[in-house]
Amino acid sequence: MEEELTKSYITMPKGFKANGVSAGMKCADPANINENDPKSSYLDVGMICSDTLCNVAGVYTSNLVKGLSLVRSLNIIENTGKARAIITNSKVANAGVGAVGVEDAAKVAEAASSLLGCDASEILTASTGVIGSRLPLDKMLPVIPSLVNGLSSSEDAAHNAEYAMMTTDTVPKEVSAQIELTGGKTVTISGIAKGSGMIHPNLATMISIFTTDCGIDSASLKKMLQKAVKYTFNRVSVDGDTSVCDMVVIFANGASGVSVEEGSEDYQLVENAFCGLAEDIARMIAADGEGATKFVEIEVHGAKDEKDAKLIVTSVARSPLCKTAFFGEDANIGRILTAVGYSGAMFDPEKVDIHLNGMLMYKDGAAVAFDEDEAAKLLSEHDLKVDITLYEGDAYDRMFTCDFSYDYVKINGSYRT
Amino acid sequence: MEEELTKSYITMPKGFKANGVSAGMKCADPANINENDPKSSYLDVGMICSDTLCNVAGVYTSNLVKGLSLVRSLNIIENTGKARAIITNSKVANAGVGAVGVEDAAKVAEAASSLLGCDASEILTASTGVIGSRLPLDKMLPVIPSLVNGLSSSEDAAHNAEYAMMTTDTVPKEVSAQIELTGGKTVTISGIAKGSGMIHPNLATMISIFTTDCGIDSASLKKMLQKAVKYTFNRVSVDGDTSVCDMVVIFANGASGVSVEEGSEDYQLVENAFCGLAEDIARMIAADGEGATKFVEIEVHGAKDEKDAKLIVTSVARSPLCKTAFFGEDANIGRILTAVGYSGAMFDPEKVDIHLNGMLMYKDGAAVAFDEDEAAKLLSEHDLKVDITLYEGDAYDRMFTCDFSYDYVKINGSYRT
Repeated sequence: MEEELTKSYITMPKGFKANGVSAGMKCADPANINENDPKSSYLDVGMICSDTLCNVAGVYTSNLVKGLSLVRSLNIIENTGKARAIITNSKVANAGVGAVGVEDAAKVAEAASSLLGCDASEILTASTGVIGSRLPLDKMLPVIPSLVNGLSSSEDAAHNAEYAMMTTDTVPKEVSAQIELTGGKTVTISGIAKGSGMIHPNLATMISIFTTDCGIDSASLKKMLQKAVKYTFNRVSVDGDTSVCDMVVIFANGASGVSVEEGSEDYQLVENAFCGLAEDIARMIAADGEGATKFVEIEVHGAKDEKDAKLIVTSVARSPLCKTAFFGEDANIGRILTAVGYSGAMFDPEKVDIHLNGMLMYKDGAAVAFDEDEAAKLLSEHDLKVDITLYEGDAYDRMFTCDFSYDYVKINGSYRT
Repeated sequence: MEEELTKSYITMPKGFKANGVSAGMKCADPANINENDPKSSYLDVGMICSDTLCNVAGVYTSNLVKGLSLVRSLNIIENTGKARAIITNSKVANAGVGAVGVEDAAKVAEAASSLLGCDASEILTASTGVIGSRLPLDKMLPVIPSLVNGLSSSEDAAHNAEYAMMTTDTVPKEVSAQIELTGGKTVTISGIAKGSGMIHPNLATMISIFTTDCGIDSASLKKMLQKAVKYTFNRVSVDGDTSVCDMVVIFANGASGVSVEEGSEDYQLVENAFCGLAEDIARMIAADGEGATKFVEIEVHGAKDEKDAKLIVTSVARSPLCKTAFFGEDANIGRILTAVGYSGAMFDPEKVDIHLNGMLMYKDGAAVAFDEDEAAKLLSEHDLKVDITLYEGDAYDRMFTCDFSYDYVKINGSYRT
């Protein structure tokens, strides 16, 4: 049984601490921070740390160019499956700087490891921000002591770790679930994410960190993570740009005293809860897409096979013409049809139905006469759902996206400077 | 030898006439047209007609969903390779309306054929505009007599045919070349195009019509057209959306009295000129992309093979993050690198050079320190060129695109209504 929670924070699972500090990367002079400034505007180095060594699993961007903090973490996770902590920073992606970027990230981990009394290779690193600049170690290294010394399991400290990851995000993205297992014992999973632009599958299209006090072996944890991201993180497209830095990672420290084994009922309960949280956070990311005014869910039913189903939802979710029409609240069903048509999927154009928020707008290869006032009313809603039904097979897929607004252009016309 | 021309119009080749009229689709009441209104704001039905039956060749959208006027033309061209004329209309795409759309287009052709004294199957049709509405025959059929009766080889009549195709285009796109052949005789080629949004390969990503008075057999004409579009029309991306309606068609009527045969020097001269015109018009289309403030040429050198080269230029040309950075005149080389990275092409990320308007900005897997003032000056230019050099092979490709501006969102947030 999964309990409805009123609070979500990354240190809710037992045995985790977190913190977030300002190294002056987001704001030039931390001394000038006003107490009314949102914390996401100045916190830029964050940490999540388990009291004990965890099993960890990760999924990583499919971009051939990879950020160097990510490359370092990937090597650790894939080689050992173990870690105690992760240090994140925003503002500088540590990408496109050559192999020295791995060393820079390692220096940050080393600075923390001596304070924590563990090996640097037990501390993962994740960076997000501008590509092409080296990590400003002169700013980051001096704040590592306060970062580590301030680690706490408090809600405030947990939220600070989330704020420190945020870039163009407008809202923090935090989820938690407590799962009552068959024997009456409880385990907890929490997750946080950053990600608002440069988001598209595959793979992990943002930085997201999960913690759980449930005990799970590394191999099972990896399988569970891969299942959790497949129709969630891997089905979010903000702008079709797959970032070089992004990953989803989960830490399982077993501090609840309860372990689950693959194939058991308890394992299934934990997996279901994890998939649910991953979906929740994926929806949050799409809804907070850069400049977004709408959350849009694209669904396809009856596609020939899985591949075609994915091609179709991806094509519609990427189409700038569909996305600007969503922004303009324009019932421009022709653009959706066009994007389905060039998706690369095979189907009979004479057998396509399209519903928009439940309203049939296209049937059997032809537009349906619809009430413009009713359509305008539907489109004025914040959450839009496009259902595309083909009659080729029984494959289903879905994707979460958002609209394309003036603010997307504004945000991205001048992000670097 | 190809002569530099100061004028371009579709009836410059001998034996062609054209016209453009208003059927009241673009403006509700043609009686209210003010003489200061641009002709593209009210002309909506156009025609180009040869005095005699022509050999014709066409290339068509690769979208699985195809406009019905296009389906009709495709059937004629592929079955007979012959036509005398083409009737175009803007405002209504005659797509997404079911098979009745072919009959509607045929009725328009029939109305003209009786006046021209030819068979309706010798008149092609091309429609562009909103998807999902039937052709308004009540408006179009009554103007066919004035359309046909007004056919003329004059420059004005030729321009009117172009204006009648324009939708969100801001400038007419017309090209002409006169080619002096080896024997001293001259042949002429002209072309017009419409296309500003919903533009992406493959294939023909807009409506474009070419005329020539050179005699060429149908099979050779088709080959020449396919060659001409490959690195021109098929290398334009405005928004990544491949339209359902679009085609490039060429009419060759032989009225110059000169014919060319494949393999001859004259044939090569004509092909070169045609390819040059196709490139000119492709550049015009990219530069006039919806809301465009920049013309951007993406080139890749040293890719592993043709497939990878195309993946790379396509990926950068489609990236909303690159395109908004071009708009913002932001030297955000990281976004270009990112788009190359997720293109699907294989390459060594440690061996990538990127130049922007000749300035080296990325070398050997790392960003190069560059002068921000100099970069800002380069980026303030209207024409931008991105050169991506890999060291994997010798494949080359290029693509024409434009930036993504506020106006793209404005234009497409409310196109239908």
